[in-house]
Amino acid sequence: MMDSDSPVIRRRGGRASVVAARESEKRPRVSTIKYGIRPVEAVTAEQLERIHQASLAILREIGIEFRDETAIRQWKEAGADVQGQRVRLDGEMLMHLISKAPSRFEMTSRDPLQRFEIAPNTMTFSAMQGAPNVRDLQGVRRASTIEDLRNMNRLTQMLPGFHIAGGFTCEPTDIAVPWRHLHINHSSLVETNMPFFGLTTGKQRAEDSIAMGQIVHGKAFMDQNAVMLGHVSGNSPLVWDSTMLEGLRAFVEANQVVLLSPFVLGAANTPADIPATIAQLNAEALAALAYTQLVRPGAKMIYGQYSVSVSMRSGAPMSGMPEVTLINAVIGQLARRYGLPWRTTASQSSAKTFDAQSGYESAIAYMSGASACANLMMHAGGWDEAGLVCCMAKFVADAEQNLLIEKYAQGISFEHFDDALEAVRRIGPGGHYLGDSFTLKRFKDAFFAPEILDYLSYEQWKVKGSKDMAQRCREKAKSIIASYEQPPMDPAVREELDAFVAKRQEEISPSIA
Amino acid sequence: MMDSDSPVIRRRGGRASVVAARESEKRPRVSTIKYGIRPVEAVTAEQLERIHQASLAILREIGIEFRDETAIRQWKEAGADVQGQRVRLDGEMLMHLISKAPSRFEMTSRDPLQRFEIAPNTMTFSAMQGAPNVRDLQGVRRASTIEDLRNMNRLTQMLPGFHIAGGFTCEPTDIAVPWRHLHINHSSLVETNMPFFGLTTGKQRAEDSIAMGQIVHGKAFMDQNAVMLGHVSGNSPLVWDSTMLEGLRAFVEANQVVLLSPFVLGAANTPADIPATIAQLNAEALAALAYTQLVRPGAKMIYGQYSVSVSMRSGAPMSGMPEVTLINAVIGQLARRYGLPWRTTASQSSAKTFDAQSGYESAIAYMSGASACANLMMHAGGWDEAGLVCCMAKFVADAEQNLLIEKYAQGISFEHFDDALEAVRRIGPGGHYLGDSFTLKRFKDAFFAPEILDYLSYEQWKVKGSKDMAQRCREKAKSIIASYEQPPMDPAVREELDAFVAKRQEEISPSIA
Repeated sequence: MMDSDSPVIRRRGGRASVVAARESEKRPRVSTIKYGIRPVEAVTAEQLERIHQASLAILREIGIEFRDETAIRQWKEAGADVQGQRVRLDGEMLMHLISKAPSRFEMTSRDPLQRFEIAPNTMTFSAMQGAPNVRDLQGVRRASTIEDLRNMNRLTQMLPGFHIAGGFTCEPTDIAVPWRHLHINHSSLVETNMPFFGLTTGKQRAEDSIAMGQIVHGKAFMDQNAVMLGHVSGNSPLVWDSTMLEGLRAFVEANQVVLLSPFVLGAANTPADIPATIAQLNAEALAALAYTQLVRPGAKMIYGQYSVSVSMRSGAPMSGMPEVTLINAVIGQLARRYGLPWRTTASQSSAKTFDAQSGYESAIAYMSGASACANLMMHAGGWDEAGLVCCMAKFVADAEQNLLIEKYAQGISFEHFDDALEAVRRIGPGGHYLGDSFTLKRFKDAFFAPEILDYLSYEQWKVKGSKDMAQRCREKAKSIIASYEQPPMDPAVREELDAFVAKRQEEISPSIA
Repeated sequence: MMDSDSPVIRRRGGRASVVAARESEKRPRVSTIKYGIRPVEAVTAEQLERIHQASLAILREIGIEFRDETAIRQWKEAGADVQGQRVRLDGEMLMHLISKAPSRFEMTSRDPLQRFEIAPNTMTFSAMQGAPNVRDLQGVRRASTIEDLRNMNRLTQMLPGFHIAGGFTCEPTDIAVPWRHLHINHSSLVETNMPFFGLTTGKQRAEDSIAMGQIVHGKAFMDQNAVMLGHVSGNSPLVWDSTMLEGLRAFVEANQVVLLSPFVLGAANTPADIPATIAQLNAEALAALAYTQLVRPGAKMIYGQYSVSVSMRSGAPMSGMPEVTLINAVIGQLARRYGLPWRTTASQSSAKTFDAQSGYESAIAYMSGASACANLMMHAGGWDEAGLVCCMAKFVADAEQNLLIEKYAQGISFEHFDDALEAVRRIGPGGHYLGDSFTLKRFKDAFFAPEILDYLSYEQWKVKGSKDMAQRCREKAKSIIASYEQPPMDPAVREELDAFVAKRQEEISPSIA
């Protein structure tokens, strides 16, 4: 008998059953979103070149540390100037390596309808990562558990605003640290059938992540298709650590996507200056991007960066700040210069409750990324309290913002322009368009119609219980989770996946970490 | 004896006393904000030309109604094709008239430190207008009174985020309608010493507004200097009404600034199509812009537009929608083509309480205007419930957003780039910048430091009372109002102003409206 955890038998290898197709019909997220706007630019072409040259000078003269034996050996073999862990790179070698990267690639999953391109002219959304706490369905802030993570994945699967599951959207703090990655990947693979973020912190976790992906998708399929991403954070200023580089190698060797993200806390680990901050983070990114191509020429990779400025009062990272919006604009300009897709942080807030601050900061971040034509809108769901909380209500609100932002990003269609001008002629001065045939035919596509944002009159809103956005979103999250159905998975595959987790748990002592 | 309402004698004509200068030192708002970013573009040059040509075709072939005898006479004299109230304009005449407008002009007030330029490369913020309700300092929603309006003006005066007082930020519903404009202008002139919006709805109100401005600033001064703006709304589709055109003429004849704003409710009074909506609103704007130059060649004017899409469920206007962001981008492109400054609606929300929805929608609108390089960020304070509420807490929050957005708009300075790169060299891989001399010297200017947005840790925030943004803003608003001091005004001028209000109240029956 099949229970609701595995309703339909599917073959591995990414071919869809009829039921899977029906499941996916609920979500119009599958296609690639193409930018139709021309991005904001925050620097001139000449200033961009100045930043690029400054980055090259940093790598050539100061150099960068790869605190990793394998990387040091590889750089030496490639002919770089290596002294201890310090690697000095000349611009020509650097740019030659980077030129080997594909500027566009496809991601998919065991559901072939989940298929999209990541490229310098496309937009993709992924759920947040890394919160040790949730603000739960009752609005209570507490340490997150595996059941919370499963709920986040259920929401991700059901909400059309996401293309990529966050993986470790929140930490399952009820599971011993050295076992967590197993349960995180298990949930990504079982609760969703989407491309997802695996774990990259160290060789073992990364290899386990890849192995689990391969159980579900098949190794042969993954050798040909990217279904997972690995988030590789830099250690600014100018350090890449072994832990992350091991993760990088495991992902790249399995033909999966890596994201190389310098981690900028402006004025703390970069200079208190915007263009110099960019020059430094760009140097860090370029070094890691080049290294990735050294490991595997043609590896699929995304120019990353996580940037916030830091409060000089409290030392806390500040969300939604103008400097980060400017940094985004320039990173976009640089990434396009290098012909690489890039990521931003789409929705971030420092608010301690899902209030107006959370909305302001998140929307600034959304528009910051979209107006700069970011290709991966990361953390686009749930991020509050500077990433220390995954807010379930906010996750639902953000999912709708994702749809709204992707409508903006796609720009303006002139397909119906001439017909619409006929309507202007037909209606004439002083008329109205509400009953016009063109309006009836087109309004659904022409204008975005939100469900979470509320447009009732004050009186109607009061009659409906005076619910603020947080309340409405919690209710919506509950009803989505209640209606959730697990995507189909071959029971044999599921068994193999469960067995892998059990076996690795036995092998790994829970007290290692 | 002088009371606190008129602490210092000042000469009229805009020259500052020492006290006035000291008063102004609190507000670093006086200078012109120049854009340092290159705007988002939502259409190609060719598509822009298509929209422009469609607008010309609408005006040439369909025409536009000026429901106003004087305007009809003026258009006939100018040689336009006039049939009844329908005016058909050929493109050459239209663009010739518009070419007479100044592309940049200065605004100032009786405080000469309040001085800024409105131009295609500058950014200015004005407070919201027209709310019949406030959400007050206790968070209660109720009909607004004259005391509420005075408080809004006090906040406007004290908060550095505003350049222009809204005038009728909220309606003084405790005053008879035909008398309201007198008290509205009185409060703008007494509670602030900033450029402000006068009333334009009809000849009498507009002329009273100008007369009151002239009492305070002197007629001679106003003949040379713009201190007031008049907001002239269109009646889409393709109608300009007598009431507003009378206001337009009174303002323009007194050398004050007019804002010509078609009022777009997408799919209700424009086609359900973005480029055709823009073509229609652009036709409406162009006709009014040209008419303004017919009334007074060289008149100072701003390309306006108020755009929202309409919920097909409730008929309600929707804030923060992607279509409006796209419309903004294109209006920016058109206005720059015509060499005219333009306005956007900077902060608008449909929320019924100052919650996350309010934040999301407002910030989308902010970034929508800023990324399109809007020159007048209108309604940039307080706007909630689709304009039916002025929220005092939100007003304070928005004022801070204005500062944040203007920092973004100014772009990136390379002034300290080389010094900052020296810091990168000094710190090297793995170091930190917190104690570095460059950081200490530059962090204050380099990174925006908010006061209302909260960056405390969750624990600190709880100790401080777990206050959400609305609570913090209400407290801030109370303390600002408590510390408010009226800007100085010559007691003789104040007496004349008070007497004018009293005289006009006697002349106007309170039951006229």
